[in-house]
Amino acid sequence: MSATEDTKPPSQFEQRLGGIADLCESTLDALLSSDPLPLEYARPQRLLDAMRHAALGGGKRLRPMLVVETASLFGVHESQAIYTGAAFELLHCYSLVHDDLPAMDNDDTRRGKPTVHKAFDEATAILAGDALQTLAFDVLTREATHSDPAVRSALVRCLATASGIGGMAGGQMLDLEAEGRFTENKAPRALSIDDVERLQRMKTGALLAACCRAGAILGGIGDVEQRAVERYGRAIGFAFQLADDLLDVEGDAASVGKAVGKDAAKNKGTFVSMMGVRSAKRKLDELVDDAKWALRPFGNRAEWLSACADFIAARKS
Amino acid sequence: MSATEDTKPPSQFEQRLGGIADLCESTLDALLSSDPLPLEYARPQRLLDAMRHAALGGGKRLRPMLVVETASLFGVHESQAIYTGAAFELLHCYSLVHDDLPAMDNDDTRRGKPTVHKAFDEATAILAGDALQTLAFDVLTREATHSDPAVRSALVRCLATASGIGGMAGGQMLDLEAEGRFTENKAPRALSIDDVERLQRMKTGALLAACCRAGAILGGIGDVEQRAVERYGRAIGFAFQLADDLLDVEGDAASVGKAVGKDAAKNKGTFVSMMGVRSAKRKLDELVDDAKWALRPFGNRAEWLSACADFIAARKS
Repeated sequence: MSATEDTKPPSQFEQRLGGIADLCESTLDALLSSDPLPLEYARPQRLLDAMRHAALGGGKRLRPMLVVETASLFGVHESQAIYTGAAFELLHCYSLVHDDLPAMDNDDTRRGKPTVHKAFDEATAILAGDALQTLAFDVLTREATHSDPAVRSALVRCLATASGIGGMAGGQMLDLEAEGRFTENKAPRALSIDDVERLQRMKTGALLAACCRAGAILGGIGDVEQRAVERYGRAIGFAFQLADDLLDVEGDAASVGKAVGKDAAKNKGTFVSMMGVRSAKRKLDELVDDAKWALRPFGNRAEWLSACADFIAARKS
Repeated sequence: MSATEDTKPPSQFEQRLGGIADLCESTLDALLSSDPLPLEYARPQRLLDAMRHAALGGGKRLRPMLVVETASLFGVHESQAIYTGAAFELLHCYSLVHDDLPAMDNDDTRRGKPTVHKAFDEATAILAGDALQTLAFDVLTREATHSDPAVRSALVRCLATASGIGGMAGGQMLDLEAEGRFTENKAPRALSIDDVERLQRMKTGALLAACCRAGAILGGIGDVEQRAVERYGRAIGFAFQLADDLLDVEGDAASVGKAVGKDAAKNKGTFVSMMGVRSAKRKLDELVDDAKWALRPFGNRAEWLSACADFIAARKS
């Protein structure tokens, strides 16, 4: 990133994203506080510190942004929607902690900080990830999240579906398999473009799309609007991954905040390696168009979501 | 275990427990099937196999038993309550997979089989645990679990509270700290009896007590009965741990199904090491009495739960 770009004032969208990130940060900070529990229980300080290390002080908070902005399409105030947004962010943070573990991707830095198992240790990192996942579901069932328990139950269902074996965790498994780790000779497995698309949809896209669906659930909306929001969520989920692959090829570690060039080093099949940079960029443009097209029913109310699609495609970190 | 004991016919309680275990097994088998998903998603076979390895074909299924029997106090049929029981068992299974990992307790066998990271590999074991936790919450929000979403939401809340940082995961953290792993010289930390009690209550007791609370939630009951059930759950949770500590001292690996003598080898403070075997056994008797006393309001309807308290105290594995 050049000095000019560094000093460029934040766009209106970036200011809006920053505002939601601040709101998310203070919400997570409160959720991860050491408020007293009944005497016979405790929150072990080391575990709380590790969870805070994983969840606070970093990240663009794209997922909370998607929840908050989708919910706002249906008249839900951000002070209400932020709890759901924070829950989805907690789920995302747990996945980062576990993905970084030595037995998984073995990463030392994340968001420019040491990863949890580096700053603490492996056992603490495993437990911190576990407890962050639990807390995500816990938060979704609180009164503050929504007064109607039917909505709370639907939110839990939405998050669980997107993040289990048929979603994020399954996608991470496919990713490890694609590296060839479980084959005799450890050679990367040859994937079709459809395989890569499914892998990415499950690993990253499912949760991003679920954020949009969660916003719709908070708004208690009907099928037609739900489908529109879903379509948007899927398009930006795919776009997010394409942009990520492009960053891995074209970015530099300092601005991306984590190691780059890892896909090529692992001989990993990605959209970019399979389609080439030019085709990948064209596909990215199509996805942004598709995402915006899906937002048409909402007119001007969807301006931030529309800007978010551009932001995801153009992001530098 | 002597040959005589081996061939002793199962007690009525053991037959009842076996019946619920069978029902739990077939429910988990169905929940972990490879039913088709929408085309764009998949359940990776390796991950599904690892989850099945962790969840099927073993275990006494005490947690499902507690859910089913508590729910039956309030007229809920076992065919209904078993989904909640299976969800709590999935949560328990996830915790076993992660506790066995090399970075945690580093165990090679569990329920007489290789642990998941031994039968598969570490990365797969981490993901299998993660996805089992997600599935537990997923199951609780299904229609089959209960027709009322308010009940489903309350069940999620109950499970999350018992298993997060203020419950099971926190208890595991306290346990690792007690081993002295995070201190300079790795010497075990000196714990008071209150510390040990809190550690055990969080690590094991919280989830067992939550099973009883979940049964009450399924039955939609009021405060007085809920408190009675809670009291029972706490007493047997403590009893369970005491019996476990005694087994670690007095049992043999073959019948226990996992390594024994581990607490002493680690110089771990347990009730038994602190109170001595005799006092621990006396305390165990008191807890069983307390558990049964809590069941008085339910009269004969609670006979299986009452027998369950005896079973927990006397178990040989």
